[in-house]
Amino acid sequence: MVESPSPMPSIKDLVDKGPIASGSAKRSGGREGRRQMRAAPVACFPVLESKIPVYEIVPAEAIELIHVESCKILEEIGIEFRDDEAAGMWKSAGADVRGYRVRIDRAQLMELVGKVPPEYTMHARNPERTVTIGGRKSIFVPMYGAPYVLDFEGKRRYGAKADLYNFHKLAYMAPQLHSTSSIICEPMDVPVPHRHLHIIYGCLRWSDKPFMGIVTARSRAEDTMKMAGIVFGEEFVKDNTVLTAVVNCNSPLVWDATMLDALKVYAAHNQPCLLSPFALCGASTAASTIGAVAQVNAEALAGLAFTQLVRPGSPQVYGQFMVAVDMKSGAPMGGTPEAAHMMLLMGQLARKYRLPWRTSGFHVGSKLPDAQAGYEANMLMHAAILSGANYIWHVAGWLEAGLCASYAKFLLDCEQLGGWYKYAQGVDVDDLKPAMEAVREVGPAGHFLGTAHTLSKFESAFFMPPMMDFSSWEQWSAEGSLDAAARALNKARTMLDAYEEPRLDQGKLEALEDFIARREKEIPATVS
Amino acid sequence: MVESPSPMPSIKDLVDKGPIASGSAKRSGGREGRRQMRAAPVACFPVLESKIPVYEIVPAEAIELIHVESCKILEEIGIEFRDDEAAGMWKSAGADVRGYRVRIDRAQLMELVGKVPPEYTMHARNPERTVTIGGRKSIFVPMYGAPYVLDFEGKRRYGAKADLYNFHKLAYMAPQLHSTSSIICEPMDVPVPHRHLHIIYGCLRWSDKPFMGIVTARSRAEDTMKMAGIVFGEEFVKDNTVLTAVVNCNSPLVWDATMLDALKVYAAHNQPCLLSPFALCGASTAASTIGAVAQVNAEALAGLAFTQLVRPGSPQVYGQFMVAVDMKSGAPMGGTPEAAHMMLLMGQLARKYRLPWRTSGFHVGSKLPDAQAGYEANMLMHAAILSGANYIWHVAGWLEAGLCASYAKFLLDCEQLGGWYKYAQGVDVDDLKPAMEAVREVGPAGHFLGTAHTLSKFESAFFMPPMMDFSSWEQWSAEGSLDAAARALNKARTMLDAYEEPRLDQGKLEALEDFIARREKEIPATVS
Repeated sequence: MVESPSPMPSIKDLVDKGPIASGSAKRSGGREGRRQMRAAPVACFPVLESKIPVYEIVPAEAIELIHVESCKILEEIGIEFRDDEAAGMWKSAGADVRGYRVRIDRAQLMELVGKVPPEYTMHARNPERTVTIGGRKSIFVPMYGAPYVLDFEGKRRYGAKADLYNFHKLAYMAPQLHSTSSIICEPMDVPVPHRHLHIIYGCLRWSDKPFMGIVTARSRAEDTMKMAGIVFGEEFVKDNTVLTAVVNCNSPLVWDATMLDALKVYAAHNQPCLLSPFALCGASTAASTIGAVAQVNAEALAGLAFTQLVRPGSPQVYGQFMVAVDMKSGAPMGGTPEAAHMMLLMGQLARKYRLPWRTSGFHVGSKLPDAQAGYEANMLMHAAILSGANYIWHVAGWLEAGLCASYAKFLLDCEQLGGWYKYAQGVDVDDLKPAMEAVREVGPAGHFLGTAHTLSKFESAFFMPPMMDFSSWEQWSAEGSLDAAARALNKARTMLDAYEEPRLDQGKLEALEDFIARREKEIPATVS
Repeated sequence: MVESPSPMPSIKDLVDKGPIASGSAKRSGGREGRRQMRAAPVACFPVLESKIPVYEIVPAEAIELIHVESCKILEEIGIEFRDDEAAGMWKSAGADVRGYRVRIDRAQLMELVGKVPPEYTMHARNPERTVTIGGRKSIFVPMYGAPYVLDFEGKRRYGAKADLYNFHKLAYMAPQLHSTSSIICEPMDVPVPHRHLHIIYGCLRWSDKPFMGIVTARSRAEDTMKMAGIVFGEEFVKDNTVLTAVVNCNSPLVWDATMLDALKVYAAHNQPCLLSPFALCGASTAASTIGAVAQVNAEALAGLAFTQLVRPGSPQVYGQFMVAVDMKSGAPMGGTPEAAHMMLLMGQLARKYRLPWRTSGFHVGSKLPDAQAGYEANMLMHAAILSGANYIWHVAGWLEAGLCASYAKFLLDCEQLGGWYKYAQGVDVDDLKPAMEAVREVGPAGHFLGTAHTLSKFESAFFMPPMMDFSSWEQWSAEGSLDAAARALNKARTMLDAYEEPRLDQGKLEALEDFIARREKEIPATVS
């Protein structure tokens, strides 16, 4: 699977020099030529290993109270698994099953949840992009699922395959991202029954990072695994994790057959799912931060427990998608304080259970990449970082509660991720003594620009985000008075112009294309 | 001093209903009529009493290491007090003084710093706006010092007295702000030697909240105290705190005569200063987060110690203004991760010394209230809140590293403050059991909108910021497709149209105006 080994740049290089390292391979002519060329050594941050303490917003006793209430929900109210096979599996496992309603006692629940590994490794087709998550190790994953894009002309329109592939390319090139995600925007110009083929093709071809599986039907999950098998080897993907998928619980307390079907396919192959209740807090949960967390915890734990009936020991991710609704209009909101509180609580629960867990980072409600989007984004991201989330999702491009993927916000978000990455490295206490030498050298009323310490540290001491403008008003005006979104669009254009394909073996590429052609013949293009 | 007692609304009312509570007094005709009317019951958040844990980014041992290095700086390198009187006071107190260079041993330093009260009360002319800060009690204070404004037409131009008074009025009306600040923007249309008179007049007339003193000359500090004396009573302001001022140390290691002169005036009257080294980290400190903190700590402690030579036991505030510079261009940056780290470290030091302390909340580098401004703002504000800062300054209006005050950002910032205020209230653990009743009531696949719990909580459960737009794309388009900045400008206009003056006793108002007229005759309008 090793196809484009490239020297790893230092984090300093990555933060300072941006996504495109020097020394890119020269373009050779034509499609075939580009396929054959050595991949450009595109940089990527290593997995984030946080060196700062997690933030515990409530005492451990409060977490125990939540846990007990979550257990009571599953024991006394129960949860529905609306799938005959799943309900049958619960019955065989000894749970109290009536119709689709499953009541699980806490001993069985915790025994099953205890089988989920505390961390897992997800292989990329380029082994240098392989990641391990769990504990203090985290990854940044771009957004997923937008029907609309905010395009280069500032127009909001349906997403197209060309957009999706642009986003796959940007995800590949952005050093801050550890995954290509998959359905960053919906390719609305491809018939629904064929979309999954083109989405996964894009992930496997335009990027060499891990990606996300399709969950909208059992057959589509199976196609995803077959396409992964073409690239990674059919045997390899039976037991080795090469993707992560998301399955949402329909809050309150319903796991549906579609999601469970996809889950069964992936779990059988040791491919993890994010067991993520989708909660519009106040509507599909109580209008209560702690109440919403207790319910979502019950839902996620039940989902995780089920995965261990499918394949004990399979890696899985404790998940949640929690957004408070505006209780006057019913609209989902974005970066609000309670959403941050919920993340911090979920982090405390995840640590109690020793589970890798996901959250959403730059999830915002704004229509535009404007001040609202910026405020909302970092209202949430500080909590994503301080709560110790492992699979930090939706961290590039997200606007409008997920309805829209924005090129500008994609790039702005990525740059901010660089800042949060640096933030999570913590404070370099060992630099205290050397810095004090500089203070002695300079004394009162001097400046530090020429000290030996400054010369050795000036590139690495402080995060310097190039898309953020700190120049004088005059210089900024002379450069066109561009706001952050306009600067980011320019950057996206420049990056796409410089894109070079990470080489995929020609035989595998043809096999993927043959597979798609065959499946397109087999699957009617119209939804029945 | 009680002039406009008004019933305190609940926090819920404030958060939900915005700045203008119902029941405003009817406008009576003419200037005189408006002066005489009862003040409108404008709402104000109580002092923020944080209920969430502080975040300690480094262990206590690292804080001790910083403390020791800061002490060594003052013992071995020393710090300059460039003022004969101040140097003489240090000599009399037994410090090692050579010229202006003062070396202070750590025992004397800590003895003096130990005299600073851990909290203080700052009286407002409306006693309901009186605040106590220190420990877990914090206030939000709008920005200070901008020569430029970004106006209602989106034009950046010099600030004028009319702008300054607009900002005073907005500061009065914004329930999230606990102070009027003072020089929110510079009134560039007033001659420099007379400006302080008009600035303080605006604070005292257009708002009834605490304010900030003038520090640009001893005589201006004295005029500030005289004007405060007219409103609060000459005797009262000799010992009772009615304002806070800022004095900046010129990093590295210089306290200058102008600042020390103002400090002496205020400390003699028990009026606190923010002892705030102004550090462009990397230029006026080492290029090191921890090194910058150790130096700034030494500077701030030396300044605080000096205040206790002036008036032992006088309230004072441990301060810092720390911004990292872009080491490639030399430009000061805004919301970057190291600035957040520095805040968190300063908070740990402040708690070690049991000092009230200040930081800057929404300090950003952006030229515009755009995505950059939003990202930067909340990159810093999370740290301001989690570090437990008490005097959280520059939290409304700030753009362009402080060069520009923006009407739009003023209002956007205030709304975000409401979110952070709610954030700092923490998670209501007691709501767990009632919320679980709602889960039992609803069960799987239902919704919570009609439960008794929802009906009792829907107004208070979640922060709902009205300027943030969460409506559908269609509705938002029908309303003009306004970005956050445009919505905020509309809000600023509406608020200023609705402004009603908080009544100040007619005799006091005339005395203030007489004082200004007299001083304008005494002070030449041109700077000599």
